[in-house]
Amino acid sequence: MSDDEARHREKMEKRKAVQDAEVAEKTIEKGLLIVHTGPGKGKSTAAWGLMLRALGRGWRVGVVQFIKGAWDTGEKHAIKAFGDQIDWHTLGEGFTWETQDKARDLAAAKHAWAEAERLMADTSIRLVILDELNIALRYDYLDLDAVVAAFRARRPDLHIVVTGRNAKPALIEAADLVTEMGSVKHHFAAGVKAQEGIEF
Amino acid sequence: MSDDEARHREKMEKRKAVQDAEVAEKTIEKGLLIVHTGPGKGKSTAAWGLMLRALGRGWRVGVVQFIKGAWDTGEKHAIKAFGDQIDWHTLGEGFTWETQDKARDLAAAKHAWAEAERLMADTSIRLVILDELNIALRYDYLDLDAVVAAFRARRPDLHIVVTGRNAKPALIEAADLVTEMGSVKHHFAAGVKAQEGIEF
Repeated sequence: MSDDEARHREKMEKRKAVQDAEVAEKTIEKGLLIVHTGPGKGKSTAAWGLMLRALGRGWRVGVVQFIKGAWDTGEKHAIKAFGDQIDWHTLGEGFTWETQDKARDLAAAKHAWAEAERLMADTSIRLVILDELNIALRYDYLDLDAVVAAFRARRPDLHIVVTGRNAKPALIEAADLVTEMGSVKHHFAAGVKAQEGIEF
Repeated sequence: MSDDEARHREKMEKRKAVQDAEVAEKTIEKGLLIVHTGPGKGKSTAAWGLMLRALGRGWRVGVVQFIKGAWDTGEKHAIKAFGDQIDWHTLGEGFTWETQDKARDLAAAKHAWAEAERLMADTSIRLVILDELNIALRYDYLDLDAVVAAFRARRPDLHIVVTGRNAKPALIEAADLVTEMGSVKHHFAAGVKAQEGIEF
């Protein structure tokens, strides 16, 4: 072994000891409240990645989409491969500027939240994804305190993922894991359109 | 219709006009070079979400994992549902502090990059995911200029996703879409361990 190789090995042995000690300190297992927020891409997409991982573990997964309506998306085609391992509900009516009808948006949000509560109560489900719930909370279509209280009262082994920009501080406070997706560079700025297979 | 409803509708009609004009401006279709970087969670997970979307569109997807080794992950179980729509190669040997062997890490990175080049040249594949490639670039296991040149020379309809912390500036410069995952709150800090079905 050369001197350089020996130095590398020694440095990495020390680093491994630190890493191992850090891992050993973490012993708690619990259902996580996970929030994907921020202006960048990847909030819903990372939720679908978590869904795929959970499906691979044989879990049942519940999904409620609060804003997106009856759009044709790649993910909705893909999940057919998993049959009744997924309980998927697209209950949005589109963005506020699409519906142009506040009463209808409000009713859709309340209906979607009722479905979310049903999924969270279903003990066969280990992961519930509430896509764009943050948008419904931002427009005050739902009572923030009631939503956060329901999350805090979740079963110990239930994981919940909430997506959408502008997550409310009370939700962040209640969450275990919060990731902010920041936009460093976006192809829309270069005139590139939203493309099938990538954006939807 | 009440005054409040009428005001809402008028405001949303204006907003829709702005949105529609913005969408209409974007006409280019192209294979995107997408980078998921930053210290937060969701870099690889969002790549799996993109993979799921692409699979739902009937695309073939190629995956090379540059760092992760022969770990048991939920995503690897899940993809069995898609048969040969996925060409998946886990070619890492683990983190540098696991292998403790620089020569072995370097050889693994070169082997993984050769596989990546093969997948990018396969015209049946529309999306190639190079998981943790940024780590291999950061340690100079691969020649950055050669990697970026290969990306710039990609087929017009090939989408590439690169994940990992500390994306190199030259890669960001060449990319169409760069998202920085920021860590707002992490459950490890509260002593919660990495859990099956969520983290792997």
